[in-house]
Amino acid sequence: RSTPSTPSTPVVVQEEVQAALADGRGVVALESTILAHGLPHPDNIEIAAQIEDAVRAGGGVPATIAVLGGVVHVGLGPSELERICTAPDVAKLSMRDLGVAVALGLDGATTVASTSAVAHLAGIRVFATGGLGGVHRGASATFDVSADLGVIASTPVLVVCAGVKSILDVPGTLETLETLSVPVLGYRTNAFPGFYLSDSGHEVPWRVESAAEAAAVVVARDRLGTDAAGVVLANPLPVDRQVERGLHDRLVAEGLAVLEREGVHGKDVTPRLLEYFHDNSGGESLRANVELVLSNARLAGEVAAQIVAQSA
Amino acid sequence: RSTPSTPSTPVVVQEEVQAALADGRGVVALESTILAHGLPHPDNIEIAAQIEDAVRAGGGVPATIAVLGGVVHVGLGPSELERICTAPDVAKLSMRDLGVAVALGLDGATTVASTSAVAHLAGIRVFATGGLGGVHRGASATFDVSADLGVIASTPVLVVCAGVKSILDVPGTLETLETLSVPVLGYRTNAFPGFYLSDSGHEVPWRVESAAEAAAVVVARDRLGTDAAGVVLANPLPVDRQVERGLHDRLVAEGLAVLEREGVHGKDVTPRLLEYFHDNSGGESLRANVELVLSNARLAGEVAAQIVAQSA
Amino acid sequence: RSTPSTPSTPVVVQEEVQAALADGRGVVALESTILAHGLPHPDNIEIAAQIEDAVRAGGGVPATIAVLGGVVHVGLGPSELERICTAPDVAKLSMRDLGVAVALGLDGATTVASTSAVAHLAGIRVFATGGLGGVHRGASATFDVSADLGVIASTPVLVVCAGVKSILDVPGTLETLETLSVPVLGYRTNAFPGFYLSDSGHEVPWRVESAAEAAAVVVARDRLGTDAAGVVLANPLPVDRQVERGLHDRLVAEGLAVLEREGVHGKDVTPRLLEYFHDNSGGESLRANVELVLSNARLAGEVAAQIVAQSA
Ligand SMILES: [Mn+2]
Ligand SMILES: [Mn+2]
Ligand SMILES: [Mn+2]
Repeated sequence: RSTPSTPSTPVVVQEEVQAALADGRGVVALESTILAHGLPHPDNIEIAAQIEDAVRAGGGVPATIAVLGGVVHVGLGPSELERICTAPDVAKLSMRDLGVAVALGLDGATTVASTSAVAHLAGIRVFATGGLGGVHRGASATFDVSADLGVIASTPVLVVCAGVKSILDVPGTLETLETLSVPVLGYRTNAFPGFYLSDSGHEVPWRVESAAEAAAVVVARDRLGTDAAGVVLANPLPVDRQVERGLHDRLVAEGLAVLEREGVHGKDVTPRLLEYFHDNSGGESLRANVELVLSNARLAGEVAAQIVAQSA
Repeated sequence: RSTPSTPSTPVVVQEEVQAALADGRGVVALESTILAHGLPHPDNIEIAAQIEDAVRAGGGVPATIAVLGGVVHVGLGPSELERICTAPDVAKLSMRDLGVAVALGLDGATTVASTSAVAHLAGIRVFATGGLGGVHRGASATFDVSADLGVIASTPVLVVCAGVKSILDVPGTLETLETLSVPVLGYRTNAFPGFYLSDSGHEVPWRVESAAEAAAVVVARDRLGTDAAGVVLANPLPVDRQVERGLHDRLVAEGLAVLEREGVHGKDVTPRLLEYFHDNSGGESLRANVELVLSNARLAGEVAAQIVAQSA
Repeated sequence: RSTPSTPSTPVVVQEEVQAALADGRGVVALESTILAHGLPHPDNIEIAAQIEDAVRAGGGVPATIAVLGGVVHVGLGPSELERICTAPDVAKLSMRDLGVAVALGLDGATTVASTSAVAHLAGIRVFATGGLGGVHRGASATFDVSADLGVIASTPVLVVCAGVKSILDVPGTLETLETLSVPVLGYRTNAFPGFYLSDSGHEVPWRVESAAEAAAVVVARDRLGTDAAGVVLANPLPVDRQVERGLHDRLVAEGLAVLEREGVHGKDVTPRLLEYFHDNSGGESLRANVELVLSNARLAGEVAAQIVAQSA
């Protein structure tokens, strides 16, 4: 490493995104960890483009976020997307890692936490991802709770997700979101989704029937001004598009055993698990993962457009 | 539900409360969950008035907080008090639920968390309630910890309470308040009260002898400016007014069993438990509950007046 | 106690410290709990001077923080240092206790939490201590987690420490720092230090090779502006200066048994334990404790000077 020297503006916002924000169009932040660590190469390049298209189909402008050479990019062009999809040593950066990556001039992919934080910096109100991080099984002994939850609790960005993966402690995650005063809305559902599954077996506290209703909650929160928490909008896969429950339960049981056997923990858990699922589900886990991300991106585009319309 | 449309100012402050704040008189926020879900009808209407009178007797101006038709009211007139005391479908709203209630145009009663948050918005420095939410028994497995604690930790409002009910994990609640850097003051006591009991069996870190000393802590915190936490002022029932310990222990044991048997959890726990106590204590739990709320309201009025005087 | 009356400016910054901040020199905050409760009298007076000298040797200006007669002092003169080192009834003040001490006019020593908070108030960016508070062993049942962690998570001050004492739950503390989005940097090490031991057996997420790199992370975080967390810079004792592992393990086991037997808990744990170690290690624990504090103070001086240089 060379002598550290921090650029005075370590955040660059893509021109189209800048223009969309200035013009009052709805912008949707997208994370890059799914591109760098969640999807197999070379499919990830194609899927990255599909996710951005889904945001546009919903009425929004996409802004994929990543760190390239120590600069935080909000909105990536084709060559930047390819770099994050193909570079061999892309770090996985939570919010606390961003400053380190900037100081040391690294390439890195952003998580739910860091994408939310950067989105807020740039004035973006909505973020689409696959699943949130949460409370890990056994966290009462290990204290292993994702930084995603605390960042959502202090960052006024609405996150569209398909719930959390059932390898986590789902009820513990919902309780922690309640403790942290983060609203959780079910999109046309009373059930908190379980990522590959449409229904995790746990209820959401509130249900909304449309992107307009979800946006109204964000606008009402802005006008109230009690706090700066984000909002979780939980968008399940349709029941006929979820991973078949028997396959799902087998994958989760096997995946947890693999983590145990290989001693994987911390930030390596999700990438390793997704790899295991993708290798052992005959394509089903990848299919569902891509479908739910596209569905979330489209809904996020709709909500972003609605927030702008209702705030006017 | 009709199309959502958020009023541009979803908070209305009653004229008397506005005048009191402008004139530098001490204002005391009061919650409405006790009215809607904690006390039996029709007594609750009468008791609501007594609580407001107790604030005035202490030297303050009462501001009961509730959401009516999607508008947050700070200070309720007689017909509004009656509506929150009698309407059949009043939601229980923690801070995270306020934006949803505003967006969807609901009626709702405010908890410790939401009342504190709204009080702070309106410029009110003191809030009187019965007992705080806290860490639930078994929370190390369930992660069930009330949002009250986190909201108090980030909202500079002094909360007068009679500690927490002994159905909670009392030492765990005190540790969590310490972890969250919330000062806890005993009012003329070294013991943290246990709601129906004068002494929970656990110590407070600091003791104050007067409303003036409690107010001095608030004023000192303002002048220091290290953080925006609230202050818990724990005000026990006199020993000769507490619920007799044998009766108390029986009610708690039975109440916990009822919750278990009926599968009650989350926001439904406290209302169900109070109902059980009120139905099975021959009037004692209701008597003590009302007395402690009135005592807290009066002390809150004194502290609010002192804060204004000392800040001048 | 007399009638409370809070001074309108309860914080006094020593002239030399004021001048250093105005001139853009690096200032390093120092805590006083180690002086009042961590080191034996009369050695503590001499060691207090050595710690300040170490900061200067690193290129910084020291500012020891304490509360005297209800006034928060940032930077102590010789007679004030002697008072905090010798007064018999110096309270131990975490952040939540500062307002109480100001209101009641007390003398008190500051912890990691309160020193960080006051440093930030005064515009100081770096703080040197021995070890952080953390997650206590058994905290999943007791919820006993130091307020230090939450304060560091919301206070943009870099804390130089030698990790945490192995009487704590070290991996639980590291997980909690991750959950709270606090960056942890190892200074020329991949291992999180264990206070008396150079290596706690757990990894740090990032390693820096110089004071300049650590400062670059702080400057990068300032320029990003995603959040107001502090940074933990973990600086181990050299392996040949650590407490011999056999002695260490015996002291920890015995110390935990003493706490258990004497029923010591809360804020009394660390002082009692250090006293036990100092009485039963033939001088080794005191020797190591002083060496690591001096090493941290010197490194903090270097980092403070670098932050100023790189921010220019
Ligand atoms: Mn973790
Ligand atoms: Mn709960
Ligand atoms: Mn503790």
